[in-house]
Amino acid sequence: MTSIKMPTALIQGKQLIGADSSATNAQTFVATHSGTGALLDPPFHEANAEEIDLAMTLASESANIFANTSFETRAKLLEAIADGLMDAGEALLDRCHAETALPMTRLIGERARTVNQTRLFAEMIREGSWVEAKVDHGDADRTPAAKPDVRSMLISIGPVVVFGASNFPLAISVAGTDTTTAFAAGCPVVCKAHPAHPGTCEMIGNIIRDAIKAVGLPPGIFSLLQGRSHEVGHALVEHPATAAVAFTGSLAGGRALFDTANRRRNPIPVYAEMGSINPVFVLPGAIEERSEQIAQAFIGSLTMGVGQFCTNPGLILIPTGDQGDQLTQSIAEHAAAAAPGTMLHSGIHDAFNEGVARIKQTDGVQMLSQASGPSDQACCSIAVTDVATLQREHSLLEEIFGPCSTIVRYDNASEMLEVAQALEGQLTATLHGSDNELSEHQPLIEALQQKVGRLIFNGFPTGIEVCHAMVHGGPYPATSDAHFTSIGPAAIKRFTRPLCFQDFPNDQLPPELQDSNPRGIMRMVDGVFTRDQ
Amino acid sequence: MTSIKMPTALIQGKQLIGADSSATNAQTFVATHSGTGALLDPPFHEANAEEIDLAMTLASESANIFANTSFETRAKLLEAIADGLMDAGEALLDRCHAETALPMTRLIGERARTVNQTRLFAEMIREGSWVEAKVDHGDADRTPAAKPDVRSMLISIGPVVVFGASNFPLAISVAGTDTTTAFAAGCPVVCKAHPAHPGTCEMIGNIIRDAIKAVGLPPGIFSLLQGRSHEVGHALVEHPATAAVAFTGSLAGGRALFDTANRRRNPIPVYAEMGSINPVFVLPGAIEERSEQIAQAFIGSLTMGVGQFCTNPGLILIPTGDQGDQLTQSIAEHAAAAAPGTMLHSGIHDAFNEGVARIKQTDGVQMLSQASGPSDQACCSIAVTDVATLQREHSLLEEIFGPCSTIVRYDNASEMLEVAQALEGQLTATLHGSDNELSEHQPLIEALQQKVGRLIFNGFPTGIEVCHAMVHGGPYPATSDAHFTSIGPAAIKRFTRPLCFQDFPNDQLPPELQDSNPRGIMRMVDGVFTRDQ
Repeated sequence: MTSIKMPTALIQGKQLIGADSSATNAQTFVATHSGTGALLDPPFHEANAEEIDLAMTLASESANIFANTSFETRAKLLEAIADGLMDAGEALLDRCHAETALPMTRLIGERARTVNQTRLFAEMIREGSWVEAKVDHGDADRTPAAKPDVRSMLISIGPVVVFGASNFPLAISVAGTDTTTAFAAGCPVVCKAHPAHPGTCEMIGNIIRDAIKAVGLPPGIFSLLQGRSHEVGHALVEHPATAAVAFTGSLAGGRALFDTANRRRNPIPVYAEMGSINPVFVLPGAIEERSEQIAQAFIGSLTMGVGQFCTNPGLILIPTGDQGDQLTQSIAEHAAAAAPGTMLHSGIHDAFNEGVARIKQTDGVQMLSQASGPSDQACCSIAVTDVATLQREHSLLEEIFGPCSTIVRYDNASEMLEVAQALEGQLTATLHGSDNELSEHQPLIEALQQKVGRLIFNGFPTGIEVCHAMVHGGPYPATSDAHFTSIGPAAIKRFTRPLCFQDFPNDQLPPELQDSNPRGIMRMVDGVFTRDQ
Repeated sequence: MTSIKMPTALIQGKQLIGADSSATNAQTFVATHSGTGALLDPPFHEANAEEIDLAMTLASESANIFANTSFETRAKLLEAIADGLMDAGEALLDRCHAETALPMTRLIGERARTVNQTRLFAEMIREGSWVEAKVDHGDADRTPAAKPDVRSMLISIGPVVVFGASNFPLAISVAGTDTTTAFAAGCPVVCKAHPAHPGTCEMIGNIIRDAIKAVGLPPGIFSLLQGRSHEVGHALVEHPATAAVAFTGSLAGGRALFDTANRRRNPIPVYAEMGSINPVFVLPGAIEERSEQIAQAFIGSLTMGVGQFCTNPGLILIPTGDQGDQLTQSIAEHAAAAAPGTMLHSGIHDAFNEGVARIKQTDGVQMLSQASGPSDQACCSIAVTDVATLQREHSLLEEIFGPCSTIVRYDNASEMLEVAQALEGQLTATLHGSDNELSEHQPLIEALQQKVGRLIFNGFPTGIEVCHAMVHGGPYPATSDAHFTSIGPAAIKRFTRPLCFQDFPNDQLPPELQDSNPRGIMRMVDGVFTRDQ
């Protein structure tokens, strides 16, 4: 295999630790071109224990300064990162394309999303109401005891360790939501680079480093460590200075970090988004209205990005009977015609093939349709089964990462409800029906509400809107903490905690809690929401 | 020892499981009169595995109905509980006094706090803005892709297991904040009765059962299980139907439940409030202004409730020099004169005596003052040491539950800062100083902010105000989850999670998310807080 040269000024294969670069470990690994399998220059040095400790120590030492930095400075930091991502131009996209095989149009779109969400977070942090300020005035004359003056707001939680996702090298990686919301909250970040796109990570790490320098913040608030071994990640989670962990990836990976964090003398929160099968429930009325449209959009959602989304629809429930047969047939045809695609890396492709083989071998499951393509590409696969088989074979409810889904034919509403109740925690569930039909399936909707973070009507779960109301989360094993979302501005809550001031002199309080409300933010004053003084 | 009869109609020593009572386990334990050591009738049956499973199954089966109950009904439930606590009159207070040795005046005050906080939660739930509704309108014409309509709000998390505190038999036990905020959120509750006041628990359990009946909710939303063994508690935490755990008590107890919860196949959150030493930092200016007043108020805070508060001030920093000597001497005198008191039970008293003995034996620590009293009562104890000893002997930073505190004499601001940095997570820290002085100690304040949930100026940490801005929480080991408070209306957040609806028909949305905002609650609409439609 040939080796492709990249400009060494851009990628050096070293750890970025605060303002310095470091490569003290002789052990290295190389990135591969996902499309061709070619090795990419340069080799990357695995972070060693000293580098990990140095990065976390710098984060810890700069935590206090960063926590007390103005919201304006934090907003400027985010905007400088957004600018830097655009300024990096094609060099960044080219390297990203080589490491991930994601098409350039997709990467241009993902970059736009990343830049837009970073600017949205900057807007939120600058506006200031996100701190959930509460003021309860005291009353010296109250009997039997004087009432103290009590005020609280959210503050930063401390240094955050971020593990990015393989499937969103821009939007959920080094400069993704985890890093930028942690920065917004005033938390230093130490990123573990994803070993499937280490060069992209380093390029973005340099953009962040430059942004920090440009706004005059301490360089120690950001480090980027390389590593293919699990040891680097676990050492970061175990480090005494680490206050929280954000992770996007597999259930096995997320759970391992979660367990490490909880074995600490002082456990720390792990926000792991670990994916799900995102079931789609098709009610009879929907098929009557638009069977062909559903089939086409379903396969579009399933094969988008070669099925490599955590919101990929891995299960679809279709009624038995003629109309359901027709929808099933139509889905099979669209699947057979779907273009194959190169997956993010060979490990993911192997796991996908194993998952499809496992489904094929399951008693009571029939492989309905498989697209064909070269052996190094993933082909859309559709299996079909019934509710009884699904209830017996719980492995059918496990996520297979890639363009593969199982059709479950149901006889009646009560079978659909059974499936809903058998589900583990999910990021999403989707209902397709006529408007009138929804009210007839209240028990199904209520059952699904208990299982998911997001409930979609007549749409598909892929393509997550970055907005205030978005919940990209859900009960375990979709995530490790259903209180939070990992996409959208509300993701900042993960990296904050409330702090309360009792009877503090007004001029010693943060501006957000002062009587005059100098920042004009929304606050809860004596139990009532107001922007008044 | 004599046995005291209580009306058996009130206390039967059985599990309350939904609408039924159960006593299938032959193994029993008895409560003791904390003042006299007398055994109290009747014996209490330990809950067995079948009873635990039945209670959790009923909770699970009623979870959906309760989650979809109107806020008005939930508010009425809380008000019925508050009424029931008052209607129970002296019989409840008498039993509580017998089981805890807490003075009647204190219990009357605690009952008032419990009733008031329950009514405050009813008010909050009825008003409705607590659901944090967010509406982001869609845009079908947006390019390159239509923007979906996305709306989210907090929903109930599912069945909650509650472990009450020994030291607040009314305000933090069966009808305490944990139970009533879980009910407010629409979560069924299974309480593990505290074995030190099981009769009080059963009486309150019956009040709750009656309240549930009165408002017509399913009886399965509440059960009360008795047990002195750890097995009952751990079995409740392990049960598949349990969605969250609330606990107030020791670090060892809270951590054990936390570890059990995290070993589950699907881990669940444990909100454990585990106490702290609540350091008090006295700056020179405060001594100049009011030395005698500080000494008196400090000993008042330390000995209140025989020192049995999680916010008890276990460490006080006083400058070296003449004025500090005078404050130290004055504290010693007030401590020597403090009345001894009966502790909640003999186990707590034994642990207190062991803790005081441990401090006495620590190199570099001198026992400065000890009140005298009968051997079955706890006497106020004050030790004194310096910063170097504190830095060497970290056991001095461990909580001793009871009227015991250590004075640490410091030479300068940098020594004070050293102590602040050495602290583990705390519920509170307190500063005493002149108004001008505070601004000179910004590094100390910033260091303490990273360690505590509540920062108090010129007051004392005991006597927690129940209000919206209160944070009774803090970094580990003060609690197991610094995101939340366990006192005040915001405690409801522990039992909720956000759920998102995408492109749902308006009439299928909960009222809180409908376009017309029929409940008139505060919402975030397209990023802006408003009560408008």
